[in-house]
Amino acid sequence: MAELFQVLTPAEALGRLLQGLPTLKETEDVPVQEALGRVLAADIPSPTQLPTFPRSNMDGYAVRARDTFGASDGLPAYLKVSGEVAMGQVPQVKVHSGEVVRVATGGMMPEGADAVVIVEHTQVVDPTTIEAYRPVAPGENVVQVGEDVKQGERLLPRGHSLRPQDIGGLLGVGSLSVSVFRRPRVVIIATGDEVVPPEVEPGPGQIRDINTYTIAALVIRAGGVPQPSGIIRDDYEALREAAEQGIAHGDALIFSAGSSVSTRDMTAQIIGTLGKPGVLVHGVALKPGKPTILAVCGDKPVFGLPGNPVSTFVTFDLFVRPVLYHLVGTAPPEQVTVQARLTRNIASTSGREDYIPVRLLEEEGEMLAEPVFGKSNLIYILVKGQGLVVIPLDVGGLSAGQTVEVRRYS
Amino acid sequence: MAELFQVLTPAEALGRLLQGLPTLKETEDVPVQEALGRVLAADIPSPTQLPTFPRSNMDGYAVRARDTFGASDGLPAYLKVSGEVAMGQVPQVKVHSGEVVRVATGGMMPEGADAVVIVEHTQVVDPTTIEAYRPVAPGENVVQVGEDVKQGERLLPRGHSLRPQDIGGLLGVGSLSVSVFRRPRVVIIATGDEVVPPEVEPGPGQIRDINTYTIAALVIRAGGVPQPSGIIRDDYEALREAAEQGIAHGDALIFSAGSSVSTRDMTAQIIGTLGKPGVLVHGVALKPGKPTILAVCGDKPVFGLPGNPVSTFVTFDLFVRPVLYHLVGTAPPEQVTVQARLTRNIASTSGREDYIPVRLLEEEGEMLAEPVFGKSNLIYILVKGQGLVVIPLDVGGLSAGQTVEVRRYS
Repeated sequence: MAELFQVLTPAEALGRLLQGLPTLKETEDVPVQEALGRVLAADIPSPTQLPTFPRSNMDGYAVRARDTFGASDGLPAYLKVSGEVAMGQVPQVKVHSGEVVRVATGGMMPEGADAVVIVEHTQVVDPTTIEAYRPVAPGENVVQVGEDVKQGERLLPRGHSLRPQDIGGLLGVGSLSVSVFRRPRVVIIATGDEVVPPEVEPGPGQIRDINTYTIAALVIRAGGVPQPSGIIRDDYEALREAAEQGIAHGDALIFSAGSSVSTRDMTAQIIGTLGKPGVLVHGVALKPGKPTILAVCGDKPVFGLPGNPVSTFVTFDLFVRPVLYHLVGTAPPEQVTVQARLTRNIASTSGREDYIPVRLLEEEGEMLAEPVFGKSNLIYILVKGQGLVVIPLDVGGLSAGQTVEVRRYS
Repeated sequence: MAELFQVLTPAEALGRLLQGLPTLKETEDVPVQEALGRVLAADIPSPTQLPTFPRSNMDGYAVRARDTFGASDGLPAYLKVSGEVAMGQVPQVKVHSGEVVRVATGGMMPEGADAVVIVEHTQVVDPTTIEAYRPVAPGENVVQVGEDVKQGERLLPRGHSLRPQDIGGLLGVGSLSVSVFRRPRVVIIATGDEVVPPEVEPGPGQIRDINTYTIAALVIRAGGVPQPSGIIRDDYEALREAAEQGIAHGDALIFSAGSSVSTRDMTAQIIGTLGKPGVLVHGVALKPGKPTILAVCGDKPVFGLPGNPVSTFVTFDLFVRPVLYHLVGTAPPEQVTVQARLTRNIASTSGREDYIPVRLLEEEGEMLAEPVFGKSNLIYILVKGQGLVVIPLDVGGLSAGQTVEVRRYS
């Protein structure tokens, strides 16, 4: 089967997968207070204007601006204090010519006033008189009706992932509930006759399942809901049945392949039976991660990820993560990177992208990236480091001393 | 009270708060599968070694290395295939001189073999014979016992925040449960007679509560558990009672102050009654956020954050966030920044740090930062942008066209 597919670059492979993959249709209404990180399924127009009344933006005195024109240190304006605005209430006093009313930040402007003289530009002469030392223009230090938000204005667009300030902002206009995309349900199928669940003491020749749980955590970080479906024997019928159930119940399906060639081939065959168009990519110009399988089966993305822990991690990052965001109509958050100086040479082969796990060390104020070498099957290579260095397609290797960009693990 | 305190830089203010603030004493045991993002309360030593048996790292043939010495394309080594290693099982065959046993990646090495010839360097002659074209050294393509992890080796240190690969790694050695710091409980007290809950239609002069919910979401993002305690009237006794309950039940206490001067002063007085050492910082060389109050009362951090939405956000980021990580013995994740060209001049005053909300726009492949101007009391200034530009203490302003670093909202 592999022979039918040319080896694509990671960017080409992802592009082929995303092309024509629709967003999830299912949306749900959730209370805004529980919607942090959820992705809007529709534009949100403001149900109201803000503020709904003219508010003072400073502590001071509400005034008719023209009463302050020409005021200066040498020739202050003398103004009569005729009252005070209570917070949260409609002012009981009106401002007439020559009068002011005390108002705090956020207080409603009293009728007759069109500006606020800030307290720092005044001096109290007696309990009912102040001097104002500076002129104010009409509207100065006042937030006008609708200045913050206009009724019907689009507050946030479809595809927007809600941030803390958005939660506050939506509640501030009285939007208590929002329509968001359902979190993508991601079914994870681990394979391999040598793999046992973590709670089982492995016998000789057996190892505990790592990938299911790393993938599940990566799915959560990408806004999805992991649905681990256990470890399936390397048996065509058992795998096919698990796959069919997975594609029926999930929005996406991940095979964490057993590491042997035969298991990988079986995975590709089974994915081929799950629906059209089927396998789109089989093999990527990538190390680790070359034998990655990318498919779309009946509008649902299906991934065959290579079994070793570093491959799993790198291919999830390059292919699964962007697809999970795509399913909810948005782009993944920007990758966090850091510049560091490489401590050793790294060999590569031109024509493929290499991802090298590195430790980040700070030494005399300088950030160093030290490759975590080790056989690709070691589990702790990723645990021992802080990020990945990418060697681009057209580069044959990197030299010690070179400054590189490290994609930080999050 | 304010007069007693000199105005500190943000870094000095944070330093004064952190100094002597202990980490939380309470820890809890949680299943590793639910511990993503939690912070370890103790070093984790490995309960086992990995692997526990020598494993092949490639698909190929287990062999006595010396039987391949001198093999080449022109003079291959002829070797007898005496069996196959079944995945997950102890090999039933022993490798004698001149023999090989088929083994897949991850398969247990059979007795007698000390290396693996990869399948790509062999050719099948007949069902029981292969040719090997390359020599292998003893140990080649084999993962030795303990090569990944040694028993007792420190896998992860106290203060480490668990990442997806750590979850997999811990389960891989059979660590099913970890001791983590309790999530800090953060009590949030909103004040202001003008503030009503979001579900209430505000009357004239009233506004809906924004800050409680923005702060609650920021607390979640920083690994804490928000405990909103509602909107308290601007009344000394009511506030003091709420504060005392808050400090008794929370690990940290945040006042989101009403915007008037009198409320702010009341907040400072009440914090002064909550425990020793009390208010440490009152006023920071910062805009927005100058009237920030930072305190420690009986080993618990207490914050008086200014009431306008941008101030709340900036002061949370600068002071509350690092403290919440400090409470669990770790440092906050690195700030995500992006370089952008400023579209307009921004004025500032030397001697204070300014934080300016900006929109990020991409234009002809270049990232632009456009200041979101507007009165400080506007709610949607933060919603409309993607990050903050910092004007350092010793800089009087920034010029249009200048490249600046933008702290991205997350």
